[in-house]
Amino acid sequence: MDSTIANIDARQADQADPLRAFRDRFELPDGVIYLDGNSLGALPKTVKQRVAKTIGDEWGEQLIRSWNTADWVHLPQRVGKKIARLIGAEDGTVVAADSTSINLFKVLSAALDLNGGRSKIISERDNFPTDLYIAEGVAKQIGKGHRLALASAPADIPGMLDNDVAVLMLTHVNYRNGYRHDMAALTKAAHDKGILVIWDLCHTAGAMPVDLTGANADFAIGCGYKYLNGGPGAPAFLYVNPRHQGGFRQPLSGWFGHRAPFDFDSSYAPSRSIEQYLCGTPPVLAMVAMDEAMALWDDVDMAALRAKSVALCDLFIQEVGAFAADFGLTLVTPLDAECRGSQVSYSCDNGYATMQALIARGVIGDFRAPDIIRFGMTPLYLSFAEVAQAAVILKDILATRAFDAPEYQVRGAVT
Amino acid sequence: MDSTIANIDARQADQADPLRAFRDRFELPDGVIYLDGNSLGALPKTVKQRVAKTIGDEWGEQLIRSWNTADWVHLPQRVGKKIARLIGAEDGTVVAADSTSINLFKVLSAALDLNGGRSKIISERDNFPTDLYIAEGVAKQIGKGHRLALASAPADIPGMLDNDVAVLMLTHVNYRNGYRHDMAALTKAAHDKGILVIWDLCHTAGAMPVDLTGANADFAIGCGYKYLNGGPGAPAFLYVNPRHQGGFRQPLSGWFGHRAPFDFDSSYAPSRSIEQYLCGTPPVLAMVAMDEAMALWDDVDMAALRAKSVALCDLFIQEVGAFAADFGLTLVTPLDAECRGSQVSYSCDNGYATMQALIARGVIGDFRAPDIIRFGMTPLYLSFAEVAQAAVILKDILATRAFDAPEYQVRGAVT
Repeated sequence: MDSTIANIDARQADQADPLRAFRDRFELPDGVIYLDGNSLGALPKTVKQRVAKTIGDEWGEQLIRSWNTADWVHLPQRVGKKIARLIGAEDGTVVAADSTSINLFKVLSAALDLNGGRSKIISERDNFPTDLYIAEGVAKQIGKGHRLALASAPADIPGMLDNDVAVLMLTHVNYRNGYRHDMAALTKAAHDKGILVIWDLCHTAGAMPVDLTGANADFAIGCGYKYLNGGPGAPAFLYVNPRHQGGFRQPLSGWFGHRAPFDFDSSYAPSRSIEQYLCGTPPVLAMVAMDEAMALWDDVDMAALRAKSVALCDLFIQEVGAFAADFGLTLVTPLDAECRGSQVSYSCDNGYATMQALIARGVIGDFRAPDIIRFGMTPLYLSFAEVAQAAVILKDILATRAFDAPEYQVRGAVT
Repeated sequence: MDSTIANIDARQADQADPLRAFRDRFELPDGVIYLDGNSLGALPKTVKQRVAKTIGDEWGEQLIRSWNTADWVHLPQRVGKKIARLIGAEDGTVVAADSTSINLFKVLSAALDLNGGRSKIISERDNFPTDLYIAEGVAKQIGKGHRLALASAPADIPGMLDNDVAVLMLTHVNYRNGYRHDMAALTKAAHDKGILVIWDLCHTAGAMPVDLTGANADFAIGCGYKYLNGGPGAPAFLYVNPRHQGGFRQPLSGWFGHRAPFDFDSSYAPSRSIEQYLCGTPPVLAMVAMDEAMALWDDVDMAALRAKSVALCDLFIQEVGAFAADFGLTLVTPLDAECRGSQVSYSCDNGYATMQALIARGVIGDFRAPDIIRFGMTPLYLSFAEVAQAAVILKDILATRAFDAPEYQVRGAVT
């Protein structure tokens, strides 16, 4: 299929897209094809006004009273409830709070405490690094010799699940190659050995439907700033299965996790609900942006979202596939949609510079060391025509070796 | 002195006030005398526009690129540097991050690790509860039997400092009664016994000058939303003395504390600078509000700030002192300015309802269980005339028993 035909097909797909109206609910700059919503989601149009109202009316005018009158105090629960629907979680099992790293610290500490007699934590070498770093930090602080064992490939994981494993801690969709684990099957395999399971949903929540309840997951965490569009550094979330609530405490035992924070008792009495997983005072401005961003999910059909995500990925893989081998690009994302998330990644010899050249041409994806170029497919605001056009521009950059330009070799603090 | 004379004196004091121009840099509602800046600081006028710019231009238009182009990635260090000046800290010793509770978890974990052979943590029963809760959480997780010993009165602390104490952990200014510890003397007494000291500056930073370097403090933490005016749930801060940087790691070892976060290594290699005390992705919207709020401190003479704070407290104590005994109000804040922060508190039998009646009359302070009414004195935006008028209204409420009205008995979620 040549690009002209692809573009015609893409336009037809856009006309038939049941989600196409969502594009207008986002601010997106002219001249940009944004394929990085898996790193920072685009801005929902109503967020700016909502935050301005919170700053001007609630903080500026009502001042301290807004903790009650604007119900700031329950923002973590309110936002959590909106996220819960997208990830198949019951009411009262999700709160928005802190960062993904800190939330992992909480639930991993709790899981290791629950499964106290065991010594291993299983994860993957290619898990997102902060998850591994946090596991190191938790294990060191507990000081009981917990060992982090890392699978080199997903297929190795089931064989590593033995009776000395306390926790299996996986990111559902891999941040580099977009590989997606079978959540239900791995959770069951782990439970069969008495292992607790923590799922990191950073690249899942808002990208596709998830069923934590159906999979019988123990804990989950995830971030607010990717497919959920909560803004840079948005509050993260965490899920705790009801069977693990109440019986013990996570160690970041700040006052918002207390049974009665405003009694100002000198001893900690943990809330017996999901609120025990809160810690300090919630960041209201960031929470309000997140709350507003979550509002548009009320209208999203998650099955349609997933169908479009698969189709966008398939279109890009097909278009790039026509020239990838000519320029040393290797698809590292599974072809089988059942095994992938909502991104398409290639290994690429001049990956960093190639991505810089793409960005200069208005196609924004990102680079992940050592050699991966990533393209995130966000069904709420991407069109098929854009995805087809991105492939055309990528081909042109590779064919003209535009990536050789010196300005594309210079690395920023953040890649 | 009757109220008329007090009002004339107050107006004269306002005319002579070198900080009076700062009032215009805050949004404050008409008809309100705001004596709760020690709970939530007022809104600096430029914050709304700055956050709107970050949302619209940086997030909306520049998208992911703003991590570099707007230098979002270094916000924790930039904001930290602005706070450092107010608390007598050197460059490279302060970052803005997370919440006060989480920052205490980090530095207390580090301090207990540094002073590994010792078993006690000393604090006060009347410390702000979340500090005590976090100490419980840290001790439980480390699991080496650390014991939290709480002084019943400040005078008891020196006698509790023995060779088995690992950490002395105090809030510089007490949240209820406004009592202020002698930071230099207690730090020295602790160091003489080999004890590390953590100072909580929640009710100090932005209320008066502090000299952490001069006091030779080991660690400090504090919040951004009180006297620093960073907004509800603003990022907190932490200080680590240079002698404690680099040698060990705090356990919340997220990717922003890694030596090279964007190398995406699977093993944690801690930054050897203050950055090791960062954890997850910084909350950009909240950080930007905080950064903007900190800008006005460039122009503040901290000695003048303290002088006005003392004078505001003295005026209120004098005015309320004229009728306090008639209505069962007891001053619980030290009369000696050397022993207090920037608030005035009374125990009061109908404290909760009295405060509600005050708020209904436009005088906003707050209540702290079981019976304390608090009045925070924020020198940047309060006038002497307002403070004198607040005393007049308090007297009227007490004299007319306005606090008996049923609507003032109903408690909100947040008191």
